[in-house]
Amino acid sequence: MKESALDAVVVGAGFAGLAAARRLREAGKRVQVVDARERVGGRVMRGSLAGQTIDLGGQWVGVGHDRLTALAKEAGRALKPQYVEGDKLLAIGGRQKRYRGLIPPVSPGAIAGMGWVLWRLRRLQQRVPGDAPWQAAQAEALDACTLAQWRDRNLPTADGRALFDIATRAVLCVEADQISMLAFLHYLAANGDFETLTSTVQGAQAATVEGGMHALASHLAEPLGADLRLNAPVTAIAQDSDGVAVHSTDGTLRARRAIVAMAPALAGRIAMAPVSAAREQLAQRMPMGSVIKCQVAYAQPFWRAQGLSGELVSQSAVFSPVFDNSPADGSVGLLVGFIDGAEAVQWSGRPEARKRAVIDSLVAHFGAQAAQPIDYVDQDWIADPWSRGCYTGVPTPGTLSRLGPALREPCDAIHWAGTETAEAWCGYIEGALLSGERAAGEVLEALA
Amino acid sequence: MKESALDAVVVGAGFAGLAAARRLREAGKRVQVVDARERVGGRVMRGSLAGQTIDLGGQWVGVGHDRLTALAKEAGRALKPQYVEGDKLLAIGGRQKRYRGLIPPVSPGAIAGMGWVLWRLRRLQQRVPGDAPWQAAQAEALDACTLAQWRDRNLPTADGRALFDIATRAVLCVEADQISMLAFLHYLAANGDFETLTSTVQGAQAATVEGGMHALASHLAEPLGADLRLNAPVTAIAQDSDGVAVHSTDGTLRARRAIVAMAPALAGRIAMAPVSAAREQLAQRMPMGSVIKCQVAYAQPFWRAQGLSGELVSQSAVFSPVFDNSPADGSVGLLVGFIDGAEAVQWSGRPEARKRAVIDSLVAHFGAQAAQPIDYVDQDWIADPWSRGCYTGVPTPGTLSRLGPALREPCDAIHWAGTETAEAWCGYIEGALLSGERAAGEVLEALA
Repeated sequence: MKESALDAVVVGAGFAGLAAARRLREAGKRVQVVDARERVGGRVMRGSLAGQTIDLGGQWVGVGHDRLTALAKEAGRALKPQYVEGDKLLAIGGRQKRYRGLIPPVSPGAIAGMGWVLWRLRRLQQRVPGDAPWQAAQAEALDACTLAQWRDRNLPTADGRALFDIATRAVLCVEADQISMLAFLHYLAANGDFETLTSTVQGAQAATVEGGMHALASHLAEPLGADLRLNAPVTAIAQDSDGVAVHSTDGTLRARRAIVAMAPALAGRIAMAPVSAAREQLAQRMPMGSVIKCQVAYAQPFWRAQGLSGELVSQSAVFSPVFDNSPADGSVGLLVGFIDGAEAVQWSGRPEARKRAVIDSLVAHFGAQAAQPIDYVDQDWIADPWSRGCYTGVPTPGTLSRLGPALREPCDAIHWAGTETAEAWCGYIEGALLSGERAAGEVLEALA
Repeated sequence: MKESALDAVVVGAGFAGLAAARRLREAGKRVQVVDARERVGGRVMRGSLAGQTIDLGGQWVGVGHDRLTALAKEAGRALKPQYVEGDKLLAIGGRQKRYRGLIPPVSPGAIAGMGWVLWRLRRLQQRVPGDAPWQAAQAEALDACTLAQWRDRNLPTADGRALFDIATRAVLCVEADQISMLAFLHYLAANGDFETLTSTVQGAQAATVEGGMHALASHLAEPLGADLRLNAPVTAIAQDSDGVAVHSTDGTLRARRAIVAMAPALAGRIAMAPVSAAREQLAQRMPMGSVIKCQVAYAQPFWRAQGLSGELVSQSAVFSPVFDNSPADGSVGLLVGFIDGAEAVQWSGRPEARKRAVIDSLVAHFGAQAAQPIDYVDQDWIADPWSRGCYTGVPTPGTLSRLGPALREPCDAIHWAGTETAEAWCGYIEGALLSGERAAGEVLEALA
């Protein structure tokens, strides 16, 4: 059998790779998908907690995530609005308060500061094209400034800065000194705005998928059959005038084109030749964020009886933000939340201590009933060798303005997908789908 | 044969790994050294130009490089002072000038600006311990500020900023928006000061090694015999209670301890478990600098007859800085220099166009005689898959203050060497030697 009969090999069976393969197959192309893991889905992953099927990775459908919404519909999976009934908890500056609506119960100075910052960010993000941030007005100056500096200049109160940091970590899983203003504004522009990113209703955390987000990955993968090769880490991709040779632990696949559907930092572990120096540098300058997703089950969603939504944002808690993740019938109470940014680095590799810290956090904020969980599970994405962090690769200062075009620019017969390369919804599953379709389009054009 | 009889495996046969192996062997330990390349030396590499043996990688011995000086003496290799007779050329702001001494012929405003900046940097670097920059006063604030911002605040003239950028690129091979002030000050503190780093006489470029720096790597490697395994890329390092299993394409070595003597970004390509999350993040947040080292040979060192030293610093030239690298007898004229920083990324992968651009640069500054080279060679360190850039890994903002201690902190039985991990002379061969000796010391203590 002549293996060179393949039109394309897709490396990575996350949503980007699966979307690319689907589009290529629809166009009648011969495609195989290879992935290092024993499962599809990439940063979306199935788990189980107190007898419920849950998502250990990406789980939310946001407003404007049209491809993802359509995919859920096609797969016959209902969307379940994020539970938001009742009061939220906010603990900043040593005080915990309950509140409803959009205005958090912080000092008038902190509220004014946040209002000013949100207004300024909406103005600034206008400058930054979501699909080409390197073309922003004053792109280099914005890329030479860290978000931490901008925060300190624009937020006079400690409470305001703390709230801003919590939001930044929740959205990007990095600290404000690790990302440039350009990269931050690009993330806002690609996803609506800062408020959309941090919101449930009408925001990026609007709904979840009944049966789990990972079911949509399985739905995309199902038609692939034997054209999906799991447990096959790709070690090298070589190019010559005939196309590409993709070497994995499962053998070598030859094809006319390759689509590498992975975060740049992960793609950088594969020996690829030739590949542009800009892509090589990009792989070194877009580290993954740091996050551990934790989920705790209780016999009932006891917070609901106290008039609480389950949503918690806390400066002191290791485990924040937290959301209600219970099934629609409320038959069991599930809380989902994150240890993110620098704290995630500290808690990685310490599963027992981490579990205790998470539950202690919940007791401190939700009271003694939180001390009796019936089940617990977490996913340390930093320690996952095929992700090396989550949610996304975040460009370090001086990267996006100089190397941004290399995100999508093909290197001869190697094309690039993955949510980091998306023209919109960058960092989200929607962006992954979009990027896969775009890369498939490039390949179809090249093969035409 | 029971392979577990090894005391240590050293991964990487650069100066750090070779120094570690030497110290362990001197203490009677059983050691093997593994390297992906077909040669020893790492970022130091032998080449040939117009019949002369040259260094395609690191070549200079600086003031205070005592270990390296002693090693050269032990190996019977004389040090050759860098040739500096005659005038230097400086081209800034569209004008080329000749000058001698330390004060460049730029406008009084630019000189005053540079004077102020050098004074400020000397003051600021006092705050930053060379062996523990994360303990600096205000480490987080310094790490949240890029060097570009500090430059713009402190250098009012365009010429001054241009000169500063040239020096930064020459020293670190990155752009000023890609490095934090903390990382920059740490580099100064670890290597004297900014003037030392950018100087020949009494500086980091004081002398070269007769016969080539790489000869010193060969000297260190020679006693290893069959305990040196080349052409053996290490793919994984596993740990258990018995020690480590180092898997390479040449098989598996078992030992009580491993020393990984590589830049963090390169070590990050090896699957290591368990390894701390901080080390994993460090591997993603210390990208390699970008540099192409180019060398041009002429029948004579014609610039000497014009009263020129061969030293060129130019804002417009793709090829800058340049130094005289001719043999002591002046029998042939060699110029050595660099394409560094963002320009190196652009010229990587274009060998023919690059060669023309380098020679055109020399013609523009040294005149028509430069148009007739008798030989040319360059080394694109970005495209080298076992280096992925040079000279060194440079921490991005928010990295050194948060993750710095992970540079040297062992992960159970895995110890870390490499110039990036050095307590002093970080980024230089001297630092590599020091780091190897320190890591070997840790292993000896652990095995005692």
